[in-house]
Amino acid sequence: MPKMKAAIFVEPGRIVLDEKPIPDVGPLDALIRITTTTICGTDIHILKGEYPVARGLTIGHEPVGIIEKLGSAVRGYREGQRVIAGAITPSGHSEACLCGCHSQDGAGTKHGWKPMGGWRFGNTIDGAQAEYLLVPDAMTNLAPVPDGLTDEQVLMCPDILSTGFSGAESGGIRIGDIVAVFAQGPIGLCATAGARLMGASTIIAVESLPERMAIARKMGADYVVDFSKVDPVEEIRRLTDGRGVDVAIEALGKQSTFEAALRVLRPGGTLSSLGVYSADLKIPLDAFLAGLGDHTIRTTLCPGGKERMRRLMATVASGRVDTSPLVTHRFTLDRIEEAYDLFGHQRDGVLKVAITP
Amino acid sequence: MPKMKAAIFVEPGRIVLDEKPIPDVGPLDALIRITTTTICGTDIHILKGEYPVARGLTIGHEPVGIIEKLGSAVRGYREGQRVIAGAITPSGHSEACLCGCHSQDGAGTKHGWKPMGGWRFGNTIDGAQAEYLLVPDAMTNLAPVPDGLTDEQVLMCPDILSTGFSGAESGGIRIGDIVAVFAQGPIGLCATAGARLMGASTIIAVESLPERMAIARKMGADYVVDFSKVDPVEEIRRLTDGRGVDVAIEALGKQSTFEAALRVLRPGGTLSSLGVYSADLKIPLDAFLAGLGDHTIRTTLCPGGKERMRRLMATVASGRVDTSPLVTHRFTLDRIEEAYDLFGHQRDGVLKVAITP
Amino acid sequence: MPKMKAAIFVEPGRIVLDEKPIPDVGPLDALIRITTTTICGTDIHILKGEYPVARGLTIGHEPVGIIEKLGSAVRGYREGQRVIAGAITPSGHSEACLCGCHSQDGAGTKHGWKPMGGWRFGNTIDGAQAEYLLVPDAMTNLAPVPDGLTDEQVLMCPDILSTGFSGAESGGIRIGDIVAVFAQGPIGLCATAGARLMGASTIIAVESLPERMAIARKMGADYVVDFSKVDPVEEIRRLTDGRGVDVAIEALGKQSTFEAALRVLRPGGTLSSLGVYSADLKIPLDAFLAGLGDHTIRTTLCPGGKERMRRLMATVASGRVDTSPLVTHRFTLDRIEEAYDLFGHQRDGVLKVAITP
Amino acid sequence: MPKMKAAIFVEPGRIVLDEKPIPDVGPLDALIRITTTTICGTDIHILKGEYPVARGLTIGHEPVGIIEKLGSAVRGYREGQRVIAGAITPSGHSEACLCGCHSQDGAGTKHGWKPMGGWRFGNTIDGAQAEYLLVPDAMTNLAPVPDGLTDEQVLMCPDILSTGFSGAESGGIRIGDIVAVFAQGPIGLCATAGARLMGASTIIAVESLPERMAIARKMGADYVVDFSKVDPVEEIRRLTDGRGVDVAIEALGKQSTFEAALRVLRPGGTLSSLGVYSADLKIPLDAFLAGLGDHTIRTTLCPGGKERMRRLMATVASGRVDTSPLVTHRFTLDRIEEAYDLFGHQRDGVLKVAITP
Repeated sequence: MPKMKAAIFVEPGRIVLDEKPIPDVGPLDALIRITTTTICGTDIHILKGEYPVARGLTIGHEPVGIIEKLGSAVRGYREGQRVIAGAITPSGHSEACLCGCHSQDGAGTKHGWKPMGGWRFGNTIDGAQAEYLLVPDAMTNLAPVPDGLTDEQVLMCPDILSTGFSGAESGGIRIGDIVAVFAQGPIGLCATAGARLMGASTIIAVESLPERMAIARKMGADYVVDFSKVDPVEEIRRLTDGRGVDVAIEALGKQSTFEAALRVLRPGGTLSSLGVYSADLKIPLDAFLAGLGDHTIRTTLCPGGKERMRRLMATVASGRVDTSPLVTHRFTLDRIEEAYDLFGHQRDGVLKVAITP
Repeated sequence: MPKMKAAIFVEPGRIVLDEKPIPDVGPLDALIRITTTTICGTDIHILKGEYPVARGLTIGHEPVGIIEKLGSAVRGYREGQRVIAGAITPSGHSEACLCGCHSQDGAGTKHGWKPMGGWRFGNTIDGAQAEYLLVPDAMTNLAPVPDGLTDEQVLMCPDILSTGFSGAESGGIRIGDIVAVFAQGPIGLCATAGARLMGASTIIAVESLPERMAIARKMGADYVVDFSKVDPVEEIRRLTDGRGVDVAIEALGKQSTFEAALRVLRPGGTLSSLGVYSADLKIPLDAFLAGLGDHTIRTTLCPGGKERMRRLMATVASGRVDTSPLVTHRFTLDRIEEAYDLFGHQRDGVLKVAITP
Repeated sequence: MPKMKAAIFVEPGRIVLDEKPIPDVGPLDALIRITTTTICGTDIHILKGEYPVARGLTIGHEPVGIIEKLGSAVRGYREGQRVIAGAITPSGHSEACLCGCHSQDGAGTKHGWKPMGGWRFGNTIDGAQAEYLLVPDAMTNLAPVPDGLTDEQVLMCPDILSTGFSGAESGGIRIGDIVAVFAQGPIGLCATAGARLMGASTIIAVESLPERMAIARKMGADYVVDFSKVDPVEEIRRLTDGRGVDVAIEALGKQSTFEAALRVLRPGGTLSSLGVYSADLKIPLDAFLAGLGDHTIRTTLCPGGKERMRRLMATVASGRVDTSPLVTHRFTLDRIEEAYDLFGHQRDGVLKVAITP
Repeated sequence: MPKMKAAIFVEPGRIVLDEKPIPDVGPLDALIRITTTTICGTDIHILKGEYPVARGLTIGHEPVGIIEKLGSAVRGYREGQRVIAGAITPSGHSEACLCGCHSQDGAGTKHGWKPMGGWRFGNTIDGAQAEYLLVPDAMTNLAPVPDGLTDEQVLMCPDILSTGFSGAESGGIRIGDIVAVFAQGPIGLCATAGARLMGASTIIAVESLPERMAIARKMGADYVVDFSKVDPVEEIRRLTDGRGVDVAIEALGKQSTFEAALRVLRPGGTLSSLGVYSADLKIPLDAFLAGLGDHTIRTTLCPGGKERMRRLMATVASGRVDTSPLVTHRFTLDRIEEAYDLFGHQRDGVLKVAITP
């Protein structure tokens, strides 16, 4: 049984590179030889034991690679093709999928809905930080990479770009909107880019790290509020002359940013939340206008599936968004433990690392 | 200066019937001779001092009446016409109105948005519990009552029916949805009727008062869960065989109902909130799926304006909804203090009272 | 090789009952033993040679049956289960499906879109008027029938009810809308029921056959306009007092009904078209307001997939819609040629026939 | 009675500059001293007698100016303020307005809907090609120009930019869409800009005039198809590799462009029509997929009102769209007949002319 290298969750605090068998390919699967992958903030939660996964699981959900082998029932692809798959790999056939809610895919469950059920890589099945990756429901999930795009150019599509854009999309941004984006990590930066792409006329990013503030401007922010120096709620009120924003995007997952996002909304506005929270949230009565403000609060889990990936790559190919500033560091798979160390401690201005087996 | 009787907020704990001058009619106004009005739960909050209004203000926001006098610039109506106006009386010309968000009408403010700015009657201007009512922006707000409908048949349109239906509408109910409605007071009952009208195939109402449980069934509930006997979250899970509901409507304004509504939602579902809250809300991490559940939480303030009123009255006229079971008691305006006492203490199975000057 | 009886298209003018092998079951398929099926207007087009299909094809796309055999990769069902499948059987994994446009499923095509590609039964693969039916992509398409519903109660779900409701849904009907439905054949009747379910306050049906006019009222029509006696455009204008309707549903597929539907729309209204046209359409300049009327014209092909079927059956189970008046005649499969004769000539007040192998 | 100069429709073929009284200001009006205005293609239709207006009417619907006098009931503005008003000036209070359909404003009519009723300037009331303009329902329509924007920078907002963007908006363009825009006159160019602003990843413009082709690229077109050299339907199919476009925008008002737009749509796509047609339209059966293609055809009349104008000017101010290349010629009001001659004959590469009293 041939072996491959893979980054494996051993126990809280330990993700190590080890050997595993190369997986067998079922009729609906595809085996991908990974050429580039990356580490996500969620992987750090897993590393720290804050998000529980099975011991022995291969981590990672952001694959770029080459089709090594197709399942017997898979049609429409050829071995050797360069592809990506989303972080979320829906089946396409559950009730959730048929409602367009692919991220909550409950394939195989009684009612066809499962919380976060579309997220499988590095969560419920082996993930992408390895030499090979088994992609389930390949016909729903494999998206060929357009010629002319490098691995790094599409590396953000499986998760960061899809999630970031969804923050803008779920906000329902319209031409001429005023938008605030709280936090400018990789996802927040992509949310800023998404707000720009959807026609916001004023984008206010909130961040304190100078490198991120600089990239935020490149991604489309008109103003960048340094929350370490000014109160962001007051500053956004000042910038909007007291009006508030049409859409506020939360991209961190903390009470402070959630609450600030609510406080800067005009009545009738939308709070689009991308953050992964780790504690109960409080909705302050005044910020919520006692429930009479015609507010919408919406959470979105990264959209997946091959059509989503195709659209994102087309957008990258058009030059309308450029995620290359996000890849700040590069490692071989052999050195992934170092990469975890750097990324986990957010050293050296790291945004995203590219890992190449 | 001719005088009229009006129910006036004197101080917390005291709303009294007193005399006031009949108001002058500005160019865009209309003066209505009230023929029927009612008391709302919000009026009780005002009475108790929980919602602050100016001393001396006439209370009430649910008018049925006859046009007594039209402002000089008002076109399209005639004196003597029988009309209603919504509890919310938007100007029609603010930025909020032009965005379709009439309830947050900020006419006259810098940016055209004002929290709850569309609610004026019995809040920022004199209200409907009087012999006469001055309706601002009459051309936006006066809706003629179709022949053949009695005052009582349209008495719920200005607030209760508009709010209740909006709970279903903001939930985006589709044919075949499973819907839960928490609390079956007047607004919850109308939300149940709205869910039925929009095609929900299963409606689960939550209530404990037997009279309300009985009316809930009339309004369209398939199941009525008595929360005093069973845990409503568990019971709704049982009734939906573990799936959860597509839309949950909160119609009370308490942490317990808000939280239960969130807990019974399937992933990707919508919590449509109608309640007026009086304390900070908590969103439990698990119920919120850590922000990854593709949830939507939406609050709605009663939609107003003459077109909304026309539609609601047309729906009543069609026989597709019948709000007559909601009017449980009748008083003359002279006895309105008694009516407040009955309604404020929720005695005698009261749902809504009809007040006739 | 075991044989079965099937209604086969031989040549224009001839659909005959003949023998065919019972099909083999691929890994993603399911074999259904048909217990009840029916004939659709589209089948008559096929019979007449107006819609071309391959000679030798089994006709029919409205199956109710029992799972006889499941493909090796199919999970979540058991043999012996009673199920239906929609007339449209999408794969779930094409780009079209992933955009929520399952009826235009282009699985296996270059870009994942194919005009009407979701319609396979009795069009591109063997259909349901047979003893056995092979259902492709079974996990996307098989919907278990709730206990307590008879075959005939769910027989309209695969096509007629799904299509009819979609006419109301694509029209975006809101509570209080005025809706006109042109033609009250089986689909138009279900569109009327759908308009009722979505909260229209006034439904005007247009028809001339007395039996259909009577059923239209049962389905929810407030008015039924007999176009053989009055001009329907003038009559609808009269009934709406000159206003026009918010939504007009076309359920026949002729220039006259399409044009009348456009002419009765208020500015800003929606024409929801269900008809299958057989000639170019003309949009009269005046009816179209020269392109300045903020009109929407929308066509909809029957939505399919198991979740759609589940919702429709839940709606039937709730008692909120009753399609039993549509089944006017019953035949055994052996006598299907007679059934075609009756249905094709619209004799004896036929609406739909039930065929039982 | 003081007089002013105005461009007046005398009879088909003749619009002349003449004198008229400066209008009186009613309570809801505002009088604007025009500083810049322009001529629209619609004005040429009026000139030619193709669109009938009253003899003696002042033409023009694209005003930039200074508030000279406010009506007695107008609040929230001050005399001397620089403002624009949309080509469409809705009342804000009709049923149409309260449905968000301001362009079909039927203020004063029985049901509150009137085809194109929001278009008043230079249509049913005196227009903007004059020294002074009376703006009705001033509080709904006057939008202050942000400091720092010149008259010419906002001159396209009242009509061209609002209409062009609405073509993209009514198309429901999403991030990653492929969009075709037929004709690159002023409105088509703004539609191209709108498609770009909403996140289309591929924009294909169709045009044959070299200057317009060049500006189309500046506005965001990725490809410009010269229909005088290639068949645009074939070329767009080639460019999309056979797939077709998600959204096709028609910006000319001819059968040829309407039909081509329909033919390049993928199934399930949207045809967003902006053109003003002058003859019946034909929908070819095959292009329409016999009514089974899940197509949407939507027409949009220029959105107006002060909030729309505010958003458009904010977008201009953000630098995300630049309409300055559209103003190709400049005239004083005294020479407006020359301007009509140039613009009417489309000489000298004219796109739009700026007229300054």
